[in-house]
Amino acid sequence: MLVLGLDPGLGTTGWGLIRAEGNRLSHVANGQLRTNAAEPLPRRLAYLASQLEALIADRAPQAAAAEEVFVNKNPQSTLKLGQARGVVLMTAAKAGIEVGEYAPTLVKKAVVGTGAADKAQVHAMVRRLLPGAEIAGPDAADALAVAITHAHHLATARRT
Amino acid sequence: MLVLGLDPGLGTTGWGLIRAEGNRLSHVANGQLRTNAAEPLPRRLAYLASQLEALIADRAPQAAAAEEVFVNKNPQSTLKLGQARGVVLMTAAKAGIEVGEYAPTLVKKAVVGTGAADKAQVHAMVRRLLPGAEIAGPDAADALAVAITHAHHLATARRT
Repeated sequence: MLVLGLDPGLGTTGWGLIRAEGNRLSHVANGQLRTNAAEPLPRRLAYLASQLEALIADRAPQAAAAEEVFVNKNPQSTLKLGQARGVVLMTAAKAGIEVGEYAPTLVKKAVVGTGAADKAQVHAMVRRLLPGAEIAGPDAADALAVAITHAHHLATARRT
Repeated sequence: MLVLGLDPGLGTTGWGLIRAEGNRLSHVANGQLRTNAAEPLPRRLAYLASQLEALIADRAPQAAAAEEVFVNKNPQSTLKLGQARGVVLMTAAKAGIEVGEYAPTLVKKAVVGTGAADKAQVHAMVRRLLPGAEIAGPDAADALAVAITHAHHLATARRT
């Protein structure tokens, strides 16, 4: 099964695609979708959607997941993030893919083993769990982490 | 020229379509797009996008506008609103329509004449400026108000 992890953002949306066979995970591809800050917001969002649509059409993932959002930052960033996140979730759903949502602590626990892990530990474990992966950047690493979490969750759900 | 006003929301998105010929405005249609709170978020957003796509394909507006967002509410509502707003702006942009954005005070000023007007005054003026319009609800009225604002703005821009 191909699982697509997504880390939505207006400027940069990370994505990571892994293959999950039972408990065995392997890296397929990852990257970062960017939009141009000089463009008007609606056009940036439309460009983000087009890139993600093309990616989904090309790779045909069977499942997708994104992190739930912490909203303790400044409200303007929350709004920006929300706008990008809405477009990302919608684009996956429109392609007929169910999108799992996981709390950040759950992602940390699934990847590192503790919900108190920091970003660096998460990224290091992503590299270990997916050997050979060249990771495009921190947003792509976060996306791979949520893909790993979703794969674990789906495997557990199948067993029980 | 057909101008589509939009008042995005996850549960209810208001829309209002007016015809602008120079300074003359007339009502064409308005309504409220709803999503089912019992559905998962990505599916609600996809449904919102489909409804708006169908509306745009059906009515073929040449311009669109939405209010800018005040983010002084609780961050969870800001996130929710942001997600719906992102989908709405993106859907219009993807259909090739430029989307104007106006601060709430600017909408009040354009419709009522003062940025300090309250909702009730705005809605009353919308009814006066668009006689004969049956308005589907408060979100549709807000959408008509932003359509009126955009029409004024476009008319002024043409003159100067």
